[in-house]
Amino acid sequence: MSLAIISPGRNPKVWIDALTFYYPEIDIQVYPAIDRPDEVEMAMVWQHPPGYLRELPNLKLISSLGAGVDHILSDPAVPESLPIVRIVDEKLTWSMTNYVVMGVLNFHRQITRYQADQQRKVWDMSMPEIPVKVGVMGVGALGGDVMDKLDFMGFRVFGYGFSDKEDFRFPYFSKNKLQEFLDEINVLVCLLPLTPDTENILSLELFQKCKPGTFLVNVARGKHLVEADLIPALDAGYLSGALLDVYRTEPLPESHPFWEERRIQLTPHIASVTNPQAAAPQIIENYKRLKANQPLFNLVNRQRGY
Amino acid sequence: MSLAIISPGRNPKVWIDALTFYYPEIDIQVYPAIDRPDEVEMAMVWQHPPGYLRELPNLKLISSLGAGVDHILSDPAVPESLPIVRIVDEKLTWSMTNYVVMGVLNFHRQITRYQADQQRKVWDMSMPEIPVKVGVMGVGALGGDVMDKLDFMGFRVFGYGFSDKEDFRFPYFSKNKLQEFLDEINVLVCLLPLTPDTENILSLELFQKCKPGTFLVNVARGKHLVEADLIPALDAGYLSGALLDVYRTEPLPESHPFWEERRIQLTPHIASVTNPQAAAPQIIENYKRLKANQPLFNLVNRQRGY
Repeated sequence: MSLAIISPGRNPKVWIDALTFYYPEIDIQVYPAIDRPDEVEMAMVWQHPPGYLRELPNLKLISSLGAGVDHILSDPAVPESLPIVRIVDEKLTWSMTNYVVMGVLNFHRQITRYQADQQRKVWDMSMPEIPVKVGVMGVGALGGDVMDKLDFMGFRVFGYGFSDKEDFRFPYFSKNKLQEFLDEINVLVCLLPLTPDTENILSLELFQKCKPGTFLVNVARGKHLVEADLIPALDAGYLSGALLDVYRTEPLPESHPFWEERRIQLTPHIASVTNPQAAAPQIIENYKRLKANQPLFNLVNRQRGY
Repeated sequence: MSLAIISPGRNPKVWIDALTFYYPEIDIQVYPAIDRPDEVEMAMVWQHPPGYLRELPNLKLISSLGAGVDHILSDPAVPESLPIVRIVDEKLTWSMTNYVVMGVLNFHRQITRYQADQQRKVWDMSMPEIPVKVGVMGVGALGGDVMDKLDFMGFRVFGYGFSDKEDFRFPYFSKNKLQEFLDEINVLVCLLPLTPDTENILSLELFQKCKPGTFLVNVARGKHLVEADLIPALDAGYLSGALLDVYRTEPLPESHPFWEERRIQLTPHIASVTNPQAAAPQIIENYKRLKANQPLFNLVNRQRGY
């Protein structure tokens, strides 16, 4: 039995170090140098070459290298019967929340305004705060933690999602209540999983429903945002700015208009990066459970898409 | 009996509106148009002309328009016997904490690095977080709230102050334990009151004791910082950057070198601005208590300086 790491373009060393630290006997093969494909029973994947998993005849389990699994589900060559697990890591949640709270506070306290004032040597004390109410789309482990932290800090928070929720701890709006949700807020945070329901949800159609000047934070997936709609939504005043961490094509192509748009702040998909040291124990645990034919941790429900 | 507002250069209308909303019968005179000085028993002051209070022969109470009272205590013409009260306002605390947390998160998540990367169209995912431990100098209502919020968010916090504290809820270092305090942290937040003990405390002598690359946030008073020492401390690597809201001279003079220093982020004394609507009730309450000869709220201890 061996474990394959299939994560083209990334250095696998930190993963190999972390996995062997917790399980020295583990047999690891790294793509593309997988010379014993028939021995691979578990594959750790991140943006694998579509179709490649077919070449592993004895594959029994796919483990995403992150919290998302859309990169796996979008490959039609992945057999329906194969279980998929994902990383559920408190450190991932912590980083994501810090990033989002940073985005909310920078909008609330107008950091880019003061940066521009500094450049022009302008001392302007007027209206030092923009009042904010924060809407979070996607209220799972990540969205829920963002809401808990903002609530503790004294901000009003509202949730939106595609499933009904009873007794959710904050005001919550489901599927067809999008307008009511958007009416409450002026900061919109997307933390949805990427599914056919949510792909392209951040579109001009949605932005038109926002309160004028709403600030957008997208930390979910690039495909949630119709990128061609963002600058028109800023120009129309539906949105006043955006903080983006994810893009339809990553790295963001040099010719992309977002790079030069001063109302958009970009970061290179770093809001929440899986830490191999923190994630290795749960991968090892699933590897051992697979070997022992025991129930797996953090199994993905393919119907829901996460 | 009348109340004088002495706050040169600021529009008193929001204060008059707020005070009369809560106490319509109040008699308010606004500096410099104080034509019945003998009737003034209470003065609300912010950066009053030194010596002016001598011209109010029946003055019985001075109320600062903010949390700080250094602008009052520094005027030798203010009689020792006159009680001074200050604003203690949850909204002041809330704003201050949001500003400081923003500063901590922007350092932790390297906002200025990603802004520079965006300008040069650089996609660099390496090392997305700077680990931080936050030291707060001054652990009163403001500093304590900053620590509570950062602690809830999962950051380690350490306090420093000039008084001994037993059973403080976070690790705390007093007066002569400055080196031990600075050894723990790489973000230094100054929220001290301005007193003879604390004036000029943020000096090259202190910066040399910091861990290399410590990030400074000064939201207390301009006189805490020896301004001429800051750029040398950045050049020497003792500090890696600073977020400043207060200055020895405000507005910051156009010729000041801070404006053009990219490692220093400036805001124009807006971290926490007293909100007249929120503060009016406690001013009115003290006005009524003065009239009725009852004990006052939020009395300043002149020995401590706050």
